[in-house]
Amino acid sequence: MAVEKTMEKIVSLSKNRGFVYPGSDIYGGLANAWDYGPLGVELKNNVKKAWWRKFIQESTYNVGVDCAILMNPQVWVASGHVGGFSDPLIDCKDCKTRHRADKLIEDWNKENNIEFKVDGLKNEELMQYIKDRGVKCPNCDSANFTDIRKFNLMFKTFQGVTEDSKAEIFLRPETAQGIFVNFKNVQRTTRRKIPFGIGQIGKSFRNEITPGNFTFRTREFEQMELEFFCEPGKDLEWFNYWKDFCYKWLLALNMKPESLKLRDHEKEELSHYSNATTDIEFMFPFGWGELWGIADRTDYDLKQHMLHSKDDLSYFDPATNEKYVPYCIEPSLGADRVTLAFLCEAYDEEEVAEGDVRTVLRFHPALAPVKIAILPLSKKLGEEADKVYQMLTKNYVCEYDETGSIGKRYRRQDEIGTPYCITFDFDSLEDKSVTIRDRDTMQQVRIKIDELNSYFNGKFEF
Amino acid sequence: MAVEKTMEKIVSLSKNRGFVYPGSDIYGGLANAWDYGPLGVELKNNVKKAWWRKFIQESTYNVGVDCAILMNPQVWVASGHVGGFSDPLIDCKDCKTRHRADKLIEDWNKENNIEFKVDGLKNEELMQYIKDRGVKCPNCDSANFTDIRKFNLMFKTFQGVTEDSKAEIFLRPETAQGIFVNFKNVQRTTRRKIPFGIGQIGKSFRNEITPGNFTFRTREFEQMELEFFCEPGKDLEWFNYWKDFCYKWLLALNMKPESLKLRDHEKEELSHYSNATTDIEFMFPFGWGELWGIADRTDYDLKQHMLHSKDDLSYFDPATNEKYVPYCIEPSLGADRVTLAFLCEAYDEEEVAEGDVRTVLRFHPALAPVKIAILPLSKKLGEEADKVYQMLTKNYVCEYDETGSIGKRYRRQDEIGTPYCITFDFDSLEDKSVTIRDRDTMQQVRIKIDELNSYFNGKFEF
Repeated sequence: MAVEKTMEKIVSLSKNRGFVYPGSDIYGGLANAWDYGPLGVELKNNVKKAWWRKFIQESTYNVGVDCAILMNPQVWVASGHVGGFSDPLIDCKDCKTRHRADKLIEDWNKENNIEFKVDGLKNEELMQYIKDRGVKCPNCDSANFTDIRKFNLMFKTFQGVTEDSKAEIFLRPETAQGIFVNFKNVQRTTRRKIPFGIGQIGKSFRNEITPGNFTFRTREFEQMELEFFCEPGKDLEWFNYWKDFCYKWLLALNMKPESLKLRDHEKEELSHYSNATTDIEFMFPFGWGELWGIADRTDYDLKQHMLHSKDDLSYFDPATNEKYVPYCIEPSLGADRVTLAFLCEAYDEEEVAEGDVRTVLRFHPALAPVKIAILPLSKKLGEEADKVYQMLTKNYVCEYDETGSIGKRYRRQDEIGTPYCITFDFDSLEDKSVTIRDRDTMQQVRIKIDELNSYFNGKFEF
Repeated sequence: MAVEKTMEKIVSLSKNRGFVYPGSDIYGGLANAWDYGPLGVELKNNVKKAWWRKFIQESTYNVGVDCAILMNPQVWVASGHVGGFSDPLIDCKDCKTRHRADKLIEDWNKENNIEFKVDGLKNEELMQYIKDRGVKCPNCDSANFTDIRKFNLMFKTFQGVTEDSKAEIFLRPETAQGIFVNFKNVQRTTRRKIPFGIGQIGKSFRNEITPGNFTFRTREFEQMELEFFCEPGKDLEWFNYWKDFCYKWLLALNMKPESLKLRDHEKEELSHYSNATTDIEFMFPFGWGELWGIADRTDYDLKQHMLHSKDDLSYFDPATNEKYVPYCIEPSLGADRVTLAFLCEAYDEEEVAEGDVRTVLRFHPALAPVKIAILPLSKKLGEEADKVYQMLTKNYVCEYDETGSIGKRYRRQDEIGTPYCITFDFDSLEDKSVTIRDRDTMQQVRIKIDELNSYFNGKFEF
């Protein structure tokens, strides 16, 4: 049976089982804001933990930081976000709808089977294209547009007691700059030698015109970014190292190679300062979407901060006796986005008997929000079954469920991706054993209760 | 030797060893914003993990959520933050400095040895007091003040493409409301019965007039909040349960009883909706400061949201066959604040020989940012020592240090609170054993390398 994975099914499962709810739900929501429910927060935390474990804690190269969301506004002048971080906006004069000019063209081209790349085009070029091709408003079908103007994507707020421009600050649009600004602090206090990296997990905010596709593109989102500093000239070598490392991280967490695509940016697509960029894309139910951007950013960021802060961010290399501004490789991953990808990848429907279909989330055990469910066959066994639960909950996230038939309870656990179900039955009182059922194979084994901890030991690692 | 713990020493250690740096440092900072460095992020993550583990994962009562920082503005109307969440501001007409009127009086009273409580006073009463007593400006000593006016503490920003008032939204000033808004979603999808709780860890923002005392009071901060829903009438019982639970959590993580104080709010100090409130205070180097607020908030919050959202948030209790709006107990803890408290509590100086003082952070092993340091006695032993590091780093956060004398390296690890140092010496090549040195006792034991994992097993739990 071919499984039809649709966003509709995934959004619905998420809402009904407590992975993701619409944000501010009882007030009608807030444009594409989402809240993680009890299962979603465990899933996302497991994803973040898996990243932090492999990229920071187990890495001999990297260390972590956790920087403030609110930064000195000069940071965003230096990074180019105040000047250049904007979307090209255009209004339809007839129906008053507002659009991103590049998206407008892309959608129009797709609909009309035109192959054309809008990436990197200037606003005048976009405008010219719209006029030349007679691009129409997707809402009212007229071709009566305003000029394109820039709309800065940073959320602005005011710190302190007055709303004058002096106190104007921004919510960070990326976590990367907190790392660059702390390059010297971290290098000094950890006594690290190049090459080394600094990683960070944290929220960022972008005032997107068209957020959408569930948690794929939201205005508030969480990033997992690494800035890896190396010797100039060795940057492409390290770029390939981290590209490979990221790809393998996804595979190790049960992503299938056919769900992933590595897309190298072509020369003309690259930012002026970048030596190389590759996107790892994932096949979402709505199509290919960018998951991970790995970029060789050269010495651009550190040099920009040297220029604006007047601080010396160069590095003296004791190995070569040379002083240089390090080059930087940036693998940047969206925590919400990759969590959604893991959810989509895990989703499966399986016909277990004729006409009987189970929904199962085939998460890697390290990512599963609940590791083990304890199911007493009868409520009468509650007291003894609870002892098993109490023993295991010290080491693993467990769920205890005593309502409904055992088959129904298995299905409930399948649907949230619990790798193991433990059934405590009347024999358990005698033989001090329980039945463990595997989520994927549905095979059952009988195990002594006092051997459970060693049975599960290592089963949730990756 | 009595240790003099000062904020100066703790701030300095934090900066120099990479616990906490000033935010946006190379740009001269941003009013009391701080960034966690490589050790600080591990410490704070361990604190959050310890809370999440005991309050959510091991609790049979509670589940977690992770809600968006940006919420529908109606939430803050219902919660009372739009109308009432403000500080009383007053300006000195002569020197133009700005003050919080209540703080102004408090400081004035302290200086003049006057016992008087300003909590709960209205703005007119504060103004009257300033006039009656002739309170003076702490900056220029004149008594020429403006009237008091309200200053709302919520950070305001604009979502979408225009800055008109329709798109005006706020950065959440507390995580609690995300929980109330999701009460029904969580109850429905987890099929929980009252009593149960919902916990959340996340950033909040308050535009404080006078942030300060390092990370004690910052405009951007992280909260760990639990909202525990129970039957009306059973609220005081649960209030005491959670107060006790919170206090024991602190003790279990090595807080000394004499560093803590439970302060019950008096009747007149309580919010109008609260049945009981207790603050757990900690003795910081700058004095007693609030760490944890535990409040019985009755049904106030859910009823406010019922009123404003027109949604029915009442609960049908199958045990009593009654329908009611649950009462709520709220233990609310600042993650940055309690992390600072653990840092202060851990700080110690010890005279190990005459005139020879070591600085040591006596963290509970579960909180220590680095668990084990691997120290080869000579660089020649690097290759073999690295094997020990590679083996242990799979299970524990480890550090490898091969520079400087062994005594100096012990001191470095003491200063960051590493519970165990492993020395790999020339004998290790022969006897396949290493020396483990305990941070607190400085005692050493010799252990076989292949017994290390079982030696450390359980040592970092709490």
